[in-house]
Amino acid sequence: MPSVGIVGAGLVGCLAGLALNAKGFDVTIFELRPDPRKEDSRASLRSINLAVSDRGIRAMRYVDKEIADRVLKHVIHMKGRMIHDISGKKQESHVYGLFGESINSIDRLFLNKVLLQELNKVRVKVFFDHKLVALVNGEQPELQLAAKDGFDKKVKFDYVIGADGAHSQFRYQMQKGMRMDISQQYIDMQYLELSIPKVAGAASNHPSRFAIDPNHLHIWPRKDFMLIALPNEDGLFTLTFFSPWSVMELFKHNADLFLAFFKKQFPDAFELIGAERLSYAFLHQPRCLLMQVSVNPYSGPNHRTLLIGDAAHSMVPFYGQGMNCGFEDVHVLMKLLDKNQKNLSKSISQYTAARKEDLDAICKLALDNYYEMSTKVVDPLYLLRKKIDYVLGKLGLGSLFTWIPMYTMISFRGDIRYSDAVRREKLQAKILRWLQNGTVAVLALVVAYYVRKFKKRNIGRLQL
Amino acid sequence: MPSVGIVGAGLVGCLAGLALNAKGFDVTIFELRPDPRKEDSRASLRSINLAVSDRGIRAMRYVDKEIADRVLKHVIHMKGRMIHDISGKKQESHVYGLFGESINSIDRLFLNKVLLQELNKVRVKVFFDHKLVALVNGEQPELQLAAKDGFDKKVKFDYVIGADGAHSQFRYQMQKGMRMDISQQYIDMQYLELSIPKVAGAASNHPSRFAIDPNHLHIWPRKDFMLIALPNEDGLFTLTFFSPWSVMELFKHNADLFLAFFKKQFPDAFELIGAERLSYAFLHQPRCLLMQVSVNPYSGPNHRTLLIGDAAHSMVPFYGQGMNCGFEDVHVLMKLLDKNQKNLSKSISQYTAARKEDLDAICKLALDNYYEMSTKVVDPLYLLRKKIDYVLGKLGLGSLFTWIPMYTMISFRGDIRYSDAVRREKLQAKILRWLQNGTVAVLALVVAYYVRKFKKRNIGRLQL
Repeated sequence: MPSVGIVGAGLVGCLAGLALNAKGFDVTIFELRPDPRKEDSRASLRSINLAVSDRGIRAMRYVDKEIADRVLKHVIHMKGRMIHDISGKKQESHVYGLFGESINSIDRLFLNKVLLQELNKVRVKVFFDHKLVALVNGEQPELQLAAKDGFDKKVKFDYVIGADGAHSQFRYQMQKGMRMDISQQYIDMQYLELSIPKVAGAASNHPSRFAIDPNHLHIWPRKDFMLIALPNEDGLFTLTFFSPWSVMELFKHNADLFLAFFKKQFPDAFELIGAERLSYAFLHQPRCLLMQVSVNPYSGPNHRTLLIGDAAHSMVPFYGQGMNCGFEDVHVLMKLLDKNQKNLSKSISQYTAARKEDLDAICKLALDNYYEMSTKVVDPLYLLRKKIDYVLGKLGLGSLFTWIPMYTMISFRGDIRYSDAVRREKLQAKILRWLQNGTVAVLALVVAYYVRKFKKRNIGRLQL
Repeated sequence: MPSVGIVGAGLVGCLAGLALNAKGFDVTIFELRPDPRKEDSRASLRSINLAVSDRGIRAMRYVDKEIADRVLKHVIHMKGRMIHDISGKKQESHVYGLFGESINSIDRLFLNKVLLQELNKVRVKVFFDHKLVALVNGEQPELQLAAKDGFDKKVKFDYVIGADGAHSQFRYQMQKGMRMDISQQYIDMQYLELSIPKVAGAASNHPSRFAIDPNHLHIWPRKDFMLIALPNEDGLFTLTFFSPWSVMELFKHNADLFLAFFKKQFPDAFELIGAERLSYAFLHQPRCLLMQVSVNPYSGPNHRTLLIGDAAHSMVPFYGQGMNCGFEDVHVLMKLLDKNQKNLSKSISQYTAARKEDLDAICKLALDNYYEMSTKVVDPLYLLRKKIDYVLGKLGLGSLFTWIPMYTMISFRGDIRYSDAVRREKLQAKILRWLQNGTVAVLALVVAYYVRKFKKRNIGRLQL
């Protein structure tokens, strides 16, 4: 069978390896970082929480139902958002789905380890501490790798796939030999990771280990900045503080200034984290960047190279779709393989046309969703629209037209393409405007009728 | 004095080296390629003709009047465009300037050698065959270089400047450590270099050595594709055939198909080049790509790194401004240095704000100018507008308003910023529309007056 070299043993690279191995390809994976299954490798992984939702689950199930089930045993269901107000005393739950659906918090490292273990089982070789230094195109593309152990490699494959993340070296090497449009755009925003510790003394399986409700994604929306929290299985909450760089610069490097700000803006979170922990994070945790990356096309001109995952479409994290979308990349590629009788060359050649529109759509949605999470979630009009969505969605107009709220389409309906979701939402918004205007018009007519009636009666009385 | 490391000893890198050396900085330059002054290095340089115009000349003069004069002795003045029609028999000259100004054809290699020679004279060290492999930020930025002779270097400088062209390694290294927005966009167009040999037997100084008029930039505009020609001092003309990739793909790799196409579209050029030379070029010359690159900002966060020239703003060649604009980058930086009492840090920090708008403007103009060169130059309405421009430009409304044709502003008026040129042209186009509508309105009134008069007279007659 044809050989495939994958660069990147993160989540998307691993799933691609499993999927292609299952189709009979001879897969080898190279990863820049050390093996995350070894001790003390945690420090190198930045974002440690993910929300797996329908697209990610579908892709895992397609590759191997058992893996999906094993992973899902360890997730924590978040069935809605919990909005924390500035007094630190009021919380409000907004459910995500129409039927109790949830997005699912999982530890990135745990998920990565599960996938690596599966690769081990099916004997796919993964070389860690291997840095890609060159990608040479030819009849067979060649990966040139510098290994930490000194045994550098030049390996030819029938196909090579880049899944090495937002700052992809594979992308950089690939674009040298072809016409690839690329844009990378930094968002004026940083994020800082914080945490709420598990409740002291609680048993590791006992529900009381969580300091706040574990079945929600917690948001402290403050318009220009926000704090969010996701639960971990062990009781810890991972918090992320998002703000423009200008806000972070206000504190200079003075932890006291930051603590005073934090206490005022997020009093309940401040109590839960504790001043010491917060101060340590402020002084020692890196401020992370947010970047959107877009490329076109995703494949090389000879249909033997392909970019997937963040390497192809790094997005901001505000729709919780980064990993789900990367898994869907693998799913889309597999469905093309099925259609093309396992012809990978043909499938790669069709990939950009099959995927570009959807990836552009979700990248834009992710960017727009910051505004929703940080600002709109407390806007009464927005909440009203959500209620209307809920009622109409529950109504079920049957075969005539199914009303599906946007969030549901993106997170719980992997059968709907991202771009179709955007189109349907535009139509729904239009229908809603008609309904609104129609309702207002009917109301106006009714009012006018009664006003007239009332006037007539009064005029009648006067005539008496 | 502070030290400056420059990566890239092309035209812009060399001029920057000379300029900074003249201001008293301790300059060292590193270049990936071998020394172009050595034999057989020509093959590695692609585009061998350039048109130097006012901005380039001003920058050279600012750095060293003598260098500018020496260079200008070897240029060939092109005072207009010579349009070749499809019959191969008709040529039409359109002058560029109002007062006989010209753009100036020069050999890129010659210009590069002159600048390198000047660097030699002032004892600026240039290391050839040195590949940049890393740029390490710190108190002083460090360049890590792999040398062909095996003596790799790690050198710290007070400042480092990247002038290493469109595919800049410096840019790639620099963006790793900062928030730099980058876009690279390929234009669906290739170009192939051809040439018309000098007239056989003519002495190398005799005017008869040129097969066609040397004082024009020749254009064979054919809408979807075009051919252009620039003269060289030795009598040779460098031709460039621009076309979408789809046109090139029509010929597959069949030289006969290409020759038949070429003979039909450019009969006079075909005769001058000769079938053999044309066939050789088609089979052995590379098809080159066109790419636009845009970055923001141009400088690093610590104000010790800067991108200039194509590395910062690669543009398509259709306005003949690539090198002129790169030289202007150096000029702008020098003027900032003058303003800031040789404080390079401060000047670098102000560079993006001083330059971004102009660079965006010229990149857009360059892209738009393909349409002008390939299509509009034979449009009667366009030619009429040019004539109006010429008349209004010559008119000289004095202090009231000076009418300056767009081409003049870009190519002959380096004192006008690119972005100001765009603004002024918008205003001129608006004034022209008023003039046009005004003229039509006056004409309509006159016609109406006479029609009425005529009718009255006839009515009078009838009444008789």
